[in-house]
Amino acid sequence: MKKYLGVDLGGTNVRVAVVSETGEILEEIKRPSLADQGPEIVLDNIAVMIQTLNTSKECLGVGIGIPGPVDTERGCVTLATNIKGFAGFPVIDYLQKKLNMPVYLDNDANVAGLAEAVVGSGRGKKIVYYVTHSTGIGGALVVSGKVVSGHNGYAGEIANIVIDRNRPKVDHLNAGAVENWASGTALVRQARELIDPEITSAYPIFLKAQDGDAKAIKLVSTMCEDMAYMFSAIAHVVEPHVFVIGGGVSQSHEFYFDEMIEKFKGLVHPGMKDVEFRLASLDEPGVIGAAMLCSSNGDA
Amino acid sequence: MKKYLGVDLGGTNVRVAVVSETGEILEEIKRPSLADQGPEIVLDNIAVMIQTLNTSKECLGVGIGIPGPVDTERGCVTLATNIKGFAGFPVIDYLQKKLNMPVYLDNDANVAGLAEAVVGSGRGKKIVYYVTHSTGIGGALVVSGKVVSGHNGYAGEIANIVIDRNRPKVDHLNAGAVENWASGTALVRQARELIDPEITSAYPIFLKAQDGDAKAIKLVSTMCEDMAYMFSAIAHVVEPHVFVIGGGVSQSHEFYFDEMIEKFKGLVHPGMKDVEFRLASLDEPGVIGAAMLCSSNGDA
Repeated sequence: MKKYLGVDLGGTNVRVAVVSETGEILEEIKRPSLADQGPEIVLDNIAVMIQTLNTSKECLGVGIGIPGPVDTERGCVTLATNIKGFAGFPVIDYLQKKLNMPVYLDNDANVAGLAEAVVGSGRGKKIVYYVTHSTGIGGALVVSGKVVSGHNGYAGEIANIVIDRNRPKVDHLNAGAVENWASGTALVRQARELIDPEITSAYPIFLKAQDGDAKAIKLVSTMCEDMAYMFSAIAHVVEPHVFVIGGGVSQSHEFYFDEMIEKFKGLVHPGMKDVEFRLASLDEPGVIGAAMLCSSNGDA
Repeated sequence: MKKYLGVDLGGTNVRVAVVSETGEILEEIKRPSLADQGPEIVLDNIAVMIQTLNTSKECLGVGIGIPGPVDTERGCVTLATNIKGFAGFPVIDYLQKKLNMPVYLDNDANVAGLAEAVVGSGRGKKIVYYVTHSTGIGGALVVSGKVVSGHNGYAGEIANIVIDRNRPKVDHLNAGAVENWASGTALVRQARELIDPEITSAYPIFLKAQDGDAKAIKLVSTMCEDMAYMFSAIAHVVEPHVFVIGGGVSQSHEFYFDEMIEKFKGLVHPGMKDVEFRLASLDEPGVIGAAMLCSSNGDA
């Protein structure tokens, strides 16, 4: 059985695991990522963690998932979000020399999408579009088991898709960008204004809607419609066999998936209505998908 | 040099050509497609045309481009637009038995996109998104020389992408669908209402705008903005290395490309602004792309 190393690098912690070709985690360690200490220290720390694992020498390669868009062709991060000094740093070159094995890099949403496509809910489907519905909104396109990262790593940056160009601008994203109106953060922002300034997460909003609160019902319904416009745009661009949806908000799927999918069906051609919406199924798509970069991209 | 047969099947005419692996047309014939006489007669006619070509026996396969979404996995048309009785007919099975060589099928926009991606303006680029800006609006995604057709053949049906959900519904497409506001047909419809009921094509609208007609300037400008929203949605879903644009309206590119691209840049992340917009370059992408289906999908 082939084995790969998967690295899930976040702003606070980094996980390193030995993963089997079928997506099973065989060994795993987690340590602080030292994200504020610059790329060399962050990567040296990862190299030490790899050497600590018993079976790391049996692995055929290392895959790394990292926040922000990644230029997979040049092997570096285009725009680092919460890891200092990573933008433009030659991550692949640096680690490859240190570890003497192939190194692959992609962003965390793409990596999670790859895991779900290959060994999770999208398994066996040719075109998988993974969507994280969480504090933010992210996505990943996986075709025939390979991530399509985009020219500069921005494929799947669906947060910025405009679902209603007449809404006011909220932040650096487009006016009417879906993340500003349908993400967990956006729901909370709107609920604080409209319903209760003490609300801090999406879950109580769903509960209020279930209890018949008219404002909460309207808010959830508009979120469903906004998400449906986003899914409809994606479907007309790539028509996936399945949408796999993960992320914190999607854990409340019983409160909104039916309405969202119904609205989606109203925004696509009749022949496209059979696209499936499935919940993500992996506990740790980060390390698993990172490891899968080795089999997806390389000859390993 | 490998040779393939390409078939460009339209509602009026059908072209059959022998095409080299580098996209050169070596032999070609054109006849009426007999589109109203049912699939057997249409396909028998194509088979006879193929046998008429001198070098058809040297070809490694046949590719067919056909209007409307195609289920490439089952080898049939999902929804025939202007060819009678084709929906659900097993085109590939029928022709394969008759010709005794591999047969591939895809829709005409996907086929044209494949030609442009492999031997036209997108040559050498990994992710190509082809857009026809014509009486209608269509598209095709080509990744690493292979068409991504979608689950039911609807990938690239970008006509139905909503660029402004607050516009009135025009036809069977979504209210605010880009085709209803930015296609050649949509431009003419709006120009007849706003400017001159005698207008019959997009070109005179561009000329009026150039001459300083305020209404024409506004119309062209809004079209540029609407197209920019569509391109922005596509870019956030797949981030192509290049957009290749063909079709009748794009022949007037000097009147609107600059403004459209400028508006696009205002609707994407700063790191995505270097995506290239190129004009389609092939005279007959239909037969060439159809032939390329053989090398793109098969082992041929």
